[in-house]
Amino acid sequence: MFSAGADVFIRCLKCVSVSKQIRSLMQWSFQASVHKQPVSDIFSTYGSHATGRAASSLCPPSMLCHQPARSLSDSPVWKLGRLNHIAIAVPDLQAAASFYQDVLGARVSDPQALPEHGVTTVFVELSNTKLELLHPLGDASPIAKFLQRNAAGGLHHVCLEVSDIEAAVETVRASGVRCLAKTTSIGAHGKPVMFLHPADCHGVLVELEQE
Amino acid sequence: MFSAGADVFIRCLKCVSVSKQIRSLMQWSFQASVHKQPVSDIFSTYGSHATGRAASSLCPPSMLCHQPARSLSDSPVWKLGRLNHIAIAVPDLQAAASFYQDVLGARVSDPQALPEHGVTTVFVELSNTKLELLHPLGDASPIAKFLQRNAAGGLHHVCLEVSDIEAAVETVRASGVRCLAKTTSIGAHGKPVMFLHPADCHGVLVELEQE
Repeated sequence: MFSAGADVFIRCLKCVSVSKQIRSLMQWSFQASVHKQPVSDIFSTYGSHATGRAASSLCPPSMLCHQPARSLSDSPVWKLGRLNHIAIAVPDLQAAASFYQDVLGARVSDPQALPEHGVTTVFVELSNTKLELLHPLGDASPIAKFLQRNAAGGLHHVCLEVSDIEAAVETVRASGVRCLAKTTSIGAHGKPVMFLHPADCHGVLVELEQE
Repeated sequence: MFSAGADVFIRCLKCVSVSKQIRSLMQWSFQASVHKQPVSDIFSTYGSHATGRAASSLCPPSMLCHQPARSLSDSPVWKLGRLNHIAIAVPDLQAAASFYQDVLGARVSDPQALPEHGVTTVFVELSNTKLELLHPLGDASPIAKFLQRNAAGGLHHVCLEVSDIEAAVETVRASGVRCLAKTTSIGAHGKPVMFLHPADCHGVLVELEQE
């Protein structure tokens, strides 16, 4: 399938120091042959229930390379920042907020309806980060399917801050990680965000947010 | 089922300002009638896949009370602290570590085998907390079943620090939240920990750790 020179790259899909052109071709092949689920449907069904295999599982051990890690100087200049929040989908927002406030003694916010995002949120403030309780709002909530499959609620995604969201998206795309939208959009906190495909992030839905 | 006076308490199982004696009786009834899964088997199968209903879902809306939140002065003196880590179970530790290091630019630790806990760990250092990548080690790994059900990996638990683990355990037990062990034990970081039943924590496996 690959012409001369491609054997260097086919040694390991985990290695991110290959050229974008060859990697893109491999990634296309990988997506077409392995993942059955349309990217557009992932947000509602990802996480522990993602049906696709992780990209990393494609390479049998004999194909793993041992090249040194990619130099960050190859990438656009951006830095990974702090954990902004952990999102938790809950079927009963009041009860979940009560658990964190009344049992664990955390400070929690009032519920905030975000109809443009299809959720109502409550923030649980910790000293170094926050938990974001999510409850469906409206008929097309992006977390409705998740709660259908996880009736008791569950860990939904993690949000990591980055210093330059556009540069970060370019890097992760070049590394073969699929994004769930073509371009960044304004997230629930009023800042540009991008969600990454959980099957390419070892089963975890990762949200990148401009810090 | 309840004698005189119990009607005050049966109004709402979410309310934590009831007496321990009555609450304990209700909790016993709740456990016996609703939860089919032995507590001892929860660690391997909790999280998004917990089959039990959340405690909070037991009360129909008509039974919810509107009492003010429990005063923390009722509890032993302890405080909730920072998020220590988010644990992520992964089927391929090297590939997952590579994703966080080589794609996202995070600093990651070397793998550390913890045979007494049945896992090998890699820590992903963020500026305000850390991710803990977990891979099964040995035949009786507590995360083996989780990965059988979540082949691509997934968010496993959150670890919250508390100022006094024994007092915190007393409080959560008195509030009707089941613990996954009779007593605290030394966790992977060398400090006393206790895991809380995810069905009582709105679908999330919560680890409390002595700060």
